This record gives sequence, C-alpha cells and structure tokens, in this order.
Amino acid sequence: MAGGRMRSVLWTDGGLQLIDQRKLPTELLLMRCETVDAVTRAIADMAVRGAPAIGAAGAFGLAIGAKSFPASERSSKQDVVAAVEQAKVAIDAARPTAVNLTWGASAAPLGVAELVDYTLEVAQALAEEDVAINKRLSQFGADVVPAGSNILHHCNTGALATVDIGTAIGVIYECHAQGKNVHVWVDETRPRLQGARLSAWELMREGVPIHLIADNAAGYLMLAGKVDVVLFGADRVAANGDVVNKVGTYKVAVVAKENKVPVYACVPTSTIDLNFLEGMGIPIEERSADEVACIRGVRIAPEGCPVYNPAFDITPNRYLTGIITEEGVCYPPFEQSLAKAVAAAEKRRAQA
Amino acid sequence: MAGGRMRSVLWTDGGLQLIDQRKLPTELLLMRCETVDAVTRAIADMAVRGAPAIGAAGAFGLAIGAKSFPASERSSKQDVVAAVEQAKVAIDAARPTAVNLTWGASAAPLGVAELVDYTLEVAQALAEEDVAINKRLSQFGADVVPAGSNILHHCNTGALATVDIGTAIGVIYECHAQGKNVHVWVDETRPRLQGARLSAWELMREGVPIHLIADNAAGYLMLAGKVDVVLFGADRVAANGDVVNKVGTYKVAVVAKENKVPVYACVPTSTIDLNFLEGMGIPIEERSADEVACIRGVRIAPEGCPVYNPAFDITPNRYLTGIITEEGVCYPPFEQSLAKAVAAAEKRRAQA
Repeated sequence: MAGGRMRSVLWTDGGLQLIDQRKLPTELLLMRCETVDAVTRAIADMAVRGAPAIGAAGAFGLAIGAKSFPASERSSKQDVVAAVEQAKVAIDAARPTAVNLTWGASAAPLGVAELVDYTLEVAQALAEEDVAINKRLSQFGADVVPAGSNILHHCNTGALATVDIGTAIGVIYECHAQGKNVHVWVDETRPRLQGARLSAWELMREGVPIHLIADNAAGYLMLAGKVDVVLFGADRVAANGDVVNKVGTYKVAVVAKENKVPVYACVPTSTIDLNFLEGMGIPIEERSADEVACIRGVRIAPEGCPVYNPAFDITPNRYLTGIITEEGVCYPPFEQSLAKAVAAAEKRRAQA
Repeated sequence: MAGGRMRSVLWTDGGLQLIDQRKLPTELLLMRCETVDAVTRAIADMAVRGAPAIGAAGAFGLAIGAKSFPASERSSKQDVVAAVEQAKVAIDAARPTAVNLTWGASAAPLGVAELVDYTLEVAQALAEEDVAINKRLSQFGADVVPAGSNILHHCNTGALATVDIGTAIGVIYECHAQGKNVHVWVDETRPRLQGARLSAWELMREGVPIHLIADNAAGYLMLAGKVDVVLFGADRVAANGDVVNKVGTYKVAVVAKENKVPVYACVPTSTIDLNFLEGMGIPIEERSADEVACIRGVRIAPEGCPVYNPAFDITPNRYLTGIITEEGVCYPPFEQSLAKAVAAAEKRRAQA
C-alpha cells in the first residue's frame, strides 16, 4: 500500500492476492491464487498484466510451486527443484513476449524446507525491489518532463502494471507530486483498453488531470502541437534499444518523431534483455480474435469475421529519445548506455 | 441496387429511405425520413454517414423542405426558396466538417410547383451522378493497385458511405471484380468503429478476403512489410491536397510514408473544396464523450472521465502519393492536378 493505492500483486495469508484487472474500472475485485495453475491462468487471461507485475506474480507462482510439493520423509531437494522448474515452464509460456522468469536457487546449498522458504523470500524481495526501482525510475523520469507538459501515455504502466507506483505512470505521479502541473492524454489502447479502463482509473484516483482519447486522436494532437512528451513502458527491450511494447506504440513513436515530440520508454533494467541484439527476433504474442471483435462481451464485428490481433509491436530504437531506468536515463547509442545501466543494477543488487 | 447491395440513400414512395448504419452489423434496418428535421437528425446521429452519402441525403432533405411548404393559392416562389434555405442551414450544421450543400435553383425561372419538382430532380440526379462517379473513380483507382496487394483501409468508404459502390472501397470492389486477388486489412476505426461494423460487413458480403485489426496494429503490419498500399476516403480536401478525413488517417499516412507504402485518398471531385487553400482552416467537428467512454452502450472508462473526441484529423499533402478522383489520379503538385480535375468534372457536368 502506498499513497492510498492497493498493491496489484501481494503475498498475504500464505497466498497470492491480485487485483483482477479485467473487471476495472466498473468493479475493484481481489482474487486469490493458491495453485501454479491459477497463477498461470491469471497471467494468460490478463487478470494481472504489465511486465513488472507479471514478473512478481510469476515469482510468487514459483514459490507456490515449491510449496506444493507433498512434504514427506522421502522428499528430496531434486523433487522441489523439479516442481519449481515445471512451474517456471508453465508460467513463462503464459505470455511469450514478457521477459522470462529467473530462478537460480537450484544450485544453492539448501535443504528441502529451506529451499521452499528461500523461493518465497526471493519472490518477496523481487516485489519489494520492484517498488524501490519504480521510485528511483520515476525521479529520473520527472527530471526530463518540463513543467506544464501535456504528456501522451499509451497502455497502462501504473501501480496496476507493477507491484506499486508504476514506470511511465510512476514518472507522471512523480511530476504530479512535484507540482509540475502536468496533464495527460490517455490513449484508450485498443484492443484491451488498458488506457481507458486502467490508466484513466488510476490517474483519476490520484487526482492527475487527464483526457481520455481514442488511439486514433493522438496523431492529430501531435500535429496540432498539443503533446510535449510521449511516455510508455515496455515488455522487453533489446540490447540495441528496440522496444517491444503494447501494440500501437510504434505508430505513436513514429508520429511523435515526425512532429519532433520527445519519446521515452520507462522500464526497470530487468526488462532489458541483452540476449536479444535487436527487437526483430523477440516473439510477438498473438491473442484471440474476440479481443477485437467483441468489447466487454458486446459484439462489434460481423459473425465469422477474420481477425489479426498481435498484442505487441516493435519500436526501432531510432524513434526513441531516451529509455528511463532506475539507474538513470539512457540515451543513444543505446548499446552502450543500456549495457551500463544493466551493469549498474547488477552491482547494486550484488551489494544489497 | 447493384451487385446485390442495397442503396444506403434512396428516394422511394415519395420519401427518403436510409440504411440505419448505427445498427450494423448486428441488424440491417431501414429508416424513413419524412421531414427536414428527421433528415438533419439522421445525419447528426450518424444513421447516415460518409461525405457522399451525407451529400445525397442532404439534397433529398432540401427536396423535403421544398415540398413541405404548405401549398395554397397564396404560395409564392419566395416562400419555397425560404423553406429550402432554412432546410439547408439546418442540414449543413448537422456535420460541420463535410462540404456544404449547394442549391442554385433560387435564381431559376420556375414557378412554385416546378421549383419543388426541380429540387427533387436535382437530388435524384446528384444521387445517380454519385454512383456513376464512383464507378469511374474505382476504375482509375484499380489501375494503381498491383495484383496481389495487401490493402490497408481506414474507416468506411463503401456502398454505405456513398449512394452505392463507394470510393476507396469502390476501388477495392473493382480490384476484386478484376480478379486482382487483393486482401484487405480493415482498420476497426475507433471510436465509431466504422471499419469493424460497416467495412468488414460490406466487404465480407462481397466476398473480398479481409482481416479486421485494431487501429493500433496497422503500424506493426507496415513495419513488417505486410501492407502494399493504403486507401481511404476524405470528408473534405483543400486546394493544396491536404485531406480532412476520419480521425486516425493522419497516423496511418505518416507511418505509411515512413515505410515507403503508397497512400491514396479516394474522393469524388465534389469533396475537393477550392475555397480552402490548405487543410488547417477546415473546421474539425468534436463529438460527444460517450462515443469514446462507451461502446454500444457498455461503459469502458471510469464515470466522469474527461474525454477529447475529434471526429476528423488533417493529413498534410506531403503524406499522400496521389488523390484518386472520377477524373483520374491526381499527383503532386496537387494545387494544379486537383484544379484540373475539378475543372474537368465541371465541364463534364455542363455537357450532361
């Protein structure tokens, strides 16, 4: 809990509690996940979404996996490791575009009970670290947003997309808290409407001035000089700074560059995946036709209409002014600045 | 009626019949307009939409205005003229971005009864001319679309947006009829979803292969090389070729240019308004918040959420490869090519 907000991902009473984001903004509903399968389904069905929130929920999913092993005299460490590895495969597959979970405990010199406890401790530390990271990231981000800015924001990157605070919306919260008098154009973000349903809801609750717009209106606003900066998050960032984020990000970034509007992706360094040299190789999840053909259960397209529904797109690095991380703002050439930020984060973690 | 299609705007049984486009694709409903007020409301509420369809419906509205004058021995030509002028003001105000109605009959040497008949004849001729224009435009357009093209289309420009056939979708129908083996990415076109509701419905009925996409997915498709040509219509074109069209057109055109995908606006010359030297002066209609905050009656945004909802945007001429008209394809410099097309159309009309 921070600033009156509820955590979207919370370990409580020996289990995982999530805000069911499918019901917002009409209902604020909490759900509990007691099994690996329940966590996997919550991620796949987008009850929990946003790369950092998925990461935390997934880590708690591993802890549930470790714990689920039927303890007996014959329990071996290998059995716990196998249970966690199996959970990891299922959870990673739920949303193929997000960065994979890491779990390095299998080699740790721990007994069965300690390993189970340790897996939960790792998840809890990851959740707390996410909050601390977002706080630092938001402060770096606020420095690059001029007072009085009209900010265009795509998708949801707030407290709902993370454990708390948020990334791009974290920057907006920080600007608002600093009295920078910012106003936000909230892209509705079809097809899942994370902007209309989640970002508008969060930002209104925090008292940030906003206007909701159809995604289609963002270009006209930029052409008319009514956008000063574009902020969004990312699901995965390649080593060269190519950004994989919610579908529509690419269009926004291209039109922003055309209108000389600065564009920043706001991400924890854990989203930077140095295994991918560029964005083109990162798998892009395709989701169901019904996400486009129906809206909240109401059909908007003819029956049987073929649909193509990629959940993400790729924004090549040349459209980005900078990438805001908890280790500072990275500027081109991103190969160097991102590697430096990742190294700084690793160093900080090693020292903790 | 052509090709199994119904006319969206039809004078029948002494009154105006429209397809109520708000009900599609779930219901195909016809509505009758017996008064100027009914025509004005049908245009304002978008039961009929699309610049050419609005133009034809408006012309029939003037005929209803002329006819509505209570005929008596004391009727004077001035009374009829006043009734038509009053109807014209109301109908023009219903959608401020479309080109205004023209009605030049007031100076004609006609008696009262003849003037009433003449106003209807003018409307009927305009409706028939729209069909003939779209036929010619479609043929010119088909010549610039390579066989096997993946066409990206924004909004609805088909038989529903015109009296019959359509403009950009007319080009697609012609390509399909010529066996050019085209496939269409149908932009859903938020907020009113004319793509998902109307274009998908029309194109599927005609057997044209399509995929519906969220507007946000169009950029990713272009980046991935999966779009060969972009086609859309326009509500008004300035003398320099700046295009005012459904909101979102500008974003599509910018991203297309960035990816070297040719972009064509498809318009009858009546949409070209030489009174506007450039697009920036053309009034852009703002519509209600509910169009964005609710979809088919279902609320998608928080209660009380502020919304900005421009119905159109402006695409500067530099993003257009060409403007396809019934007098041929106009290329830059558009000042000259558009003036030439308008003059050719006037000449053709004078000879008819």
